[in-house]
Amino acid sequence: MTDFVSESRPTSPWDGQEATALLVGARAAVDPELRAALDALPTGMRRVARYHFGWEHADGTAAAGHAGKAIRPALVLTAAAALGGPAARAAAARAAAAVELVHNFTLLHDDVMDRDTTRRHRPTAWTVFGVPDAILAGDALHARALGLLAADPHPAAPAAVARLAACVVELCEGQQVDTALEQRHPGEVTLDEVLTLAEAKTGALLGCACAVGALYAGAAPGDVDALDAFGREAGLAFQLIDDVIGIWGDPRHTGKPAGADLAVRKKSLPVVAALTSGTPAAAELAELYARPYAAADLERTVLAVERAGGRDWAQVQAADRMARAVSELTRAIPEPETAGGLLALAEFVTRRSV
Amino acid sequence: MTDFVSESRPTSPWDGQEATALLVGARAAVDPELRAALDALPTGMRRVARYHFGWEHADGTAAAGHAGKAIRPALVLTAAAALGGPAARAAAARAAAAVELVHNFTLLHDDVMDRDTTRRHRPTAWTVFGVPDAILAGDALHARALGLLAADPHPAAPAAVARLAACVVELCEGQQVDTALEQRHPGEVTLDEVLTLAEAKTGALLGCACAVGALYAGAAPGDVDALDAFGREAGLAFQLIDDVIGIWGDPRHTGKPAGADLAVRKKSLPVVAALTSGTPAAAELAELYARPYAAADLERTVLAVERAGGRDWAQVQAADRMARAVSELTRAIPEPETAGGLLALAEFVTRRSV
Repeated sequence: MTDFVSESRPTSPWDGQEATALLVGARAAVDPELRAALDALPTGMRRVARYHFGWEHADGTAAAGHAGKAIRPALVLTAAAALGGPAARAAAARAAAAVELVHNFTLLHDDVMDRDTTRRHRPTAWTVFGVPDAILAGDALHARALGLLAADPHPAAPAAVARLAACVVELCEGQQVDTALEQRHPGEVTLDEVLTLAEAKTGALLGCACAVGALYAGAAPGDVDALDAFGREAGLAFQLIDDVIGIWGDPRHTGKPAGADLAVRKKSLPVVAALTSGTPAAAELAELYARPYAAADLERTVLAVERAGGRDWAQVQAADRMARAVSELTRAIPEPETAGGLLALAEFVTRRSV
Repeated sequence: MTDFVSESRPTSPWDGQEATALLVGARAAVDPELRAALDALPTGMRRVARYHFGWEHADGTAAAGHAGKAIRPALVLTAAAALGGPAARAAAARAAAAVELVHNFTLLHDDVMDRDTTRRHRPTAWTVFGVPDAILAGDALHARALGLLAADPHPAAPAAVARLAACVVELCEGQQVDTALEQRHPGEVTLDEVLTLAEAKTGALLGCACAVGALYAGAAPGDVDALDAFGREAGLAFQLIDDVIGIWGDPRHTGKPAGADLAVRKKSLPVVAALTSGTPAAAELAELYARPYAAADLERTVLAVERAGGRDWAQVQAADRMARAVSELTRAIPEPETAGGLLALAEFVTRRSV
C-alpha cells in the first residue's frame, strides 16, 4: 500500500495550508491515543510497533519519529467536524486512532508479503525483527484497533467497528488480487481489474475513514455512504496521480529514479490503460514489457505509454474521480464552507508535483 | 497452538457422553454462522479459509470436513446456558462462531510462523496456497470475527469484542514468547516462563470463550471473571496433560512416534520442571538435551525426565489446576447440576489416554 508523501504545488488554487493544519491537528489529536494503544501491548510486540511508527530505533532508544502524514485520522476527524461540529470531532479521536492502527497493521503485513525492505525511509520491521514478530505485531495492532473502538462508549462505536472490519477484508482482497496480478502476463490484465484493485487497496480505507467520521457525527445512513464514496473516489484519484508520478515524476521530487515503476514492470493504471488501448504504441509497449528491463529502453517505454494514451487517460480519470468525489461530498454536505476541510484534504493528497 | 484430539477413557467417572453431546450441539449451532462468515469473504480468501476448515479440498471441491472439536464454541454456549438458560445459549451462537474464527485465524498464522506442514491430518494452508494467501486469509478471518461480533445487536456484544480483542493480543504474546523460548538454551528457561506461556497460548482463549458466554448471559462482572479463570485453569491442566502425552503417550493412541516432543528438544512443561529440579537426573537430562537427538538416547531421556520428577510434577500440577478451575467455577455457579456441562467439557479435554 502506498504511503502519502506529498508536496503541495505552489501554483495550486489550494495553497495547502488548510490541509497542512488539518493534518497537524489530526496528528496531535491521535498521537496520545496511538501511544496509549502501543503502550498497552506486551513488550515484544510493543518494540516492533514503536519501531514501525518511527518512535523508536531498532535498539529501543527513542527516535524523532515519522509516523506518516496522518491523512486517514485527518479524514475521520474532519468528516466528524463537518457533519457534527467540534464536539463530534473531539469524540472521534479514538476512532481516528483505530483507523490509523488498521492502516499500520496492513503496512506491516504487506511488507512481509511483498518482501519490501524500505518503508518511510527506514528498513521495514520484518527486516529488523524477523517475519514472525512483524506478523504478530500486525495481528496485535489489528486486534487493538478493533478492540479500542469496540470499548469506546460512543453510540456510533459498534457500527464503526463493523465498518472498519469489513474494510480490513477489502484491504486483504486488494493485497491478494495485487499479488495474483503480479504473476499474470501484462496482456491479460484488464483496466477494470486494476481500477477495482486500486479501489480495494487505496480507496477503501480512505472511504472508511470518512464514513467512520460521519458515524461519529450521528449522520444519516445515506450521508455516511456518501462520505465513504467521497473517500473512495478521492483515493482512486490519488492512486492515478501516484501512478503518473511513478513514470513521469521528477526524481528530484520523488526520491525515486525516473521511470521506477516501468523498470519493475509494474502493471500500474497508465500502463494497463496503454496496453489495452488497441493502438500501435500498445503493441510496442507490450513487446517492451515482455523483455527484461534494460536502461537503454526506458525512454522508448515511457514514450510508448504516452503515445498509447496512458498518461492522458490517467489524468482525465483522476480529474473525473475528483469530480465524482466532490459530487458525493456535496450530496452529504451542500455548504461549501462546511465541506471545505474535506475538499482541502482530497486536493492535498491528489495535487502533487509530476 | 495445539488442537484438541481427545479420546475419552472408559474407566473415567465421566463417561464423556455429556461432553460429546455438548460438542456435537455446539458444532451444529455454530456451523451455519461459520459458513455464512466464510461465504461473505472474497473468493481468494474464501478458498483458503474453507480448505483450512476442512470443508473443501485444495482444488475447491467439497470435502467431508474435520474442522476441529468445537471445544471453544461449546464453552461459550455452555457458559451462556449455565448462567442464562437456553435463551442465552441461543443468543450466543454468533459470539461462539466469532471465538472459533479467532482460534482458526491464529492457527493459520501460527502454521506460517512455525513452518508447520500438517494440521488436522492435512497439509497446512500455507503449504497449499502460499504464505501470502495464508496470512491474508488469517487477517480476513480475524476481521470477520471481531466485525461479526460488533454487528451483533446483543447488549453484551461490545464488551465481548473488547475481551476477544484483548485475548488476541495475549495469544500473539504467547506465540512470540514461544518462538523466543525456542531460540534459548534449555538451561535458561524457568518454570514460571513456560507456565505463563501455556496460559497465554492455551488458557487465554479457553478463558475468553467462557467469559464471552457469561457476558451473553448478562452475568455480573465478578462471575464473568470467575468463568475466565475457570477456562484458563482448565486450559493449563489440558496443556500439562498434553505435554505428558507428548513424552509418555502411547503411539497407538497419539498417532505420533513415542517421545516425539523429546526428539525435537521441546521445552515442554515436564521437561522444564525436570531441568529445574536440581536433581542428579536434571544434570543428566541437560547433558542429553545439549546433544543432537539420537534414537538410541530416547529411553534414557524419557527416564531422566521421569527420575527428575517431571512426570509427577506435571500430573500433580494438572490436578491442582483442575481443582482451581472447579473452585473458580463454583464461585460463579454454586449449583453442581448447573455447572455440570462446563465441568464435563473441562474433564473431557484434560482426561486423555496416556
